[in-house]
Amino acid sequence: MATEALTDRRKLRGQRTRQAILLHAARVGSAEGLEAVSLQRLATDLGISKSGLFAHFGSKEELHMATIEAASKIFADEVLRPALVVPRGVGRVWAMCKSWLSYLERGVFPGGCFFWAVAEEFDSRPGPVRDAVLEKKAYWSYSLQRAVREAQQAGEIKAGVDPEQLAWELDSLLGGVNSGFKSGDGGRALERGRRAIRERLLHAAAETAKPLD
Amino acid sequence: MATEALTDRRKLRGQRTRQAILLHAARVGSAEGLEAVSLQRLATDLGISKSGLFAHFGSKEELHMATIEAASKIFADEVLRPALVVPRGVGRVWAMCKSWLSYLERGVFPGGCFFWAVAEEFDSRPGPVRDAVLEKKAYWSYSLQRAVREAQQAGEIKAGVDPEQLAWELDSLLGGVNSGFKSGDGGRALERGRRAIRERLLHAAAETAKPLD
Repeated sequence: MATEALTDRRKLRGQRTRQAILLHAARVGSAEGLEAVSLQRLATDLGISKSGLFAHFGSKEELHMATIEAASKIFADEVLRPALVVPRGVGRVWAMCKSWLSYLERGVFPGGCFFWAVAEEFDSRPGPVRDAVLEKKAYWSYSLQRAVREAQQAGEIKAGVDPEQLAWELDSLLGGVNSGFKSGDGGRALERGRRAIRERLLHAAAETAKPLD
Repeated sequence: MATEALTDRRKLRGQRTRQAILLHAARVGSAEGLEAVSLQRLATDLGISKSGLFAHFGSKEELHMATIEAASKIFADEVLRPALVVPRGVGRVWAMCKSWLSYLERGVFPGGCFFWAVAEEFDSRPGPVRDAVLEKKAYWSYSLQRAVREAQQAGEIKAGVDPEQLAWELDSLLGGVNSGFKSGDGGRALERGRRAIRERLLHAAAETAKPLD
């Protein structure tokens, strides 16, 4: 029993260390690109031995894949989960966009959205890293689409609206905010994005929809 | 006179070589990042001696600045000039956006818009390259804004529309197309962007505006 408890504690400590390493990796990756995230760089930044890091990640690519996975969990906790508390309808679509804007504003990743940054970095470099980041980015787009479709089924979005098209537009406006944010015009971009998305949703909303906050 | 003519011909040849070098540099920069654009890389790609390139550009930064300048001239020729033939009004705003989409579709730069790519690459690296690329990007945004303002003054865009806000939205939608284009979803992104921008302009247009094509 005592030995098992000790093993569990060690496992837990190992997991926590791994999480802390990957959080740092994702933050560096968002600001400087994933290419800057190497075992050597993390060893220096975190004061861990490089051999200790090798125990967690065997190669740079493995480290990159684990970083994307960790960033995706952070995104789910920071953006998706809080918005999904809001009932289905145009209000949930609005909550998802506001949640995304808040994630940017709070600087969860210092370089803006991790996924926009890494997608841009790897878009012309075929391989598992590109595939993984595009898949995560597509998951967000798909979640937005699904929320729009559900709002339409609930009668809160006009029947003539194409859910894929609307989700694409919302996502592009969020991308515009991200780009402004990274060019040092964050406050204004957040304001413009918020306004554009709210107007776009009001335009798409059915008359019976609950008002947006 | 004969000597002068010879000097002129040499100058012209020198200018043409310089243009050809910079066009290639801009194409590589759009696809692989400006960091990939070095004197060594250009010498290898173009079969020119590195010392010959040094005669044109003294340093990597000088080469990068000249590349941005050349890309900006290409952008003016490919996007701005053709659209400005259309008379002021909502039709000109639409022509500018269509011109931008066509520039993407025709693959003027293989990596999508040169300025979005390099802005993203350099946004967290302060210095003259970042400043130059953000300035060129801002010039486009400002041109869009001005076209919207002129359309409003001509009574073709509703009085209540904020020109800066509308231009920001159009630019973000174009950015969304660029991003889709680079993720390998070019055809669909072009279609979505075209539709979104057209609808947005129809929504902003005054009743008296000439119909969009």
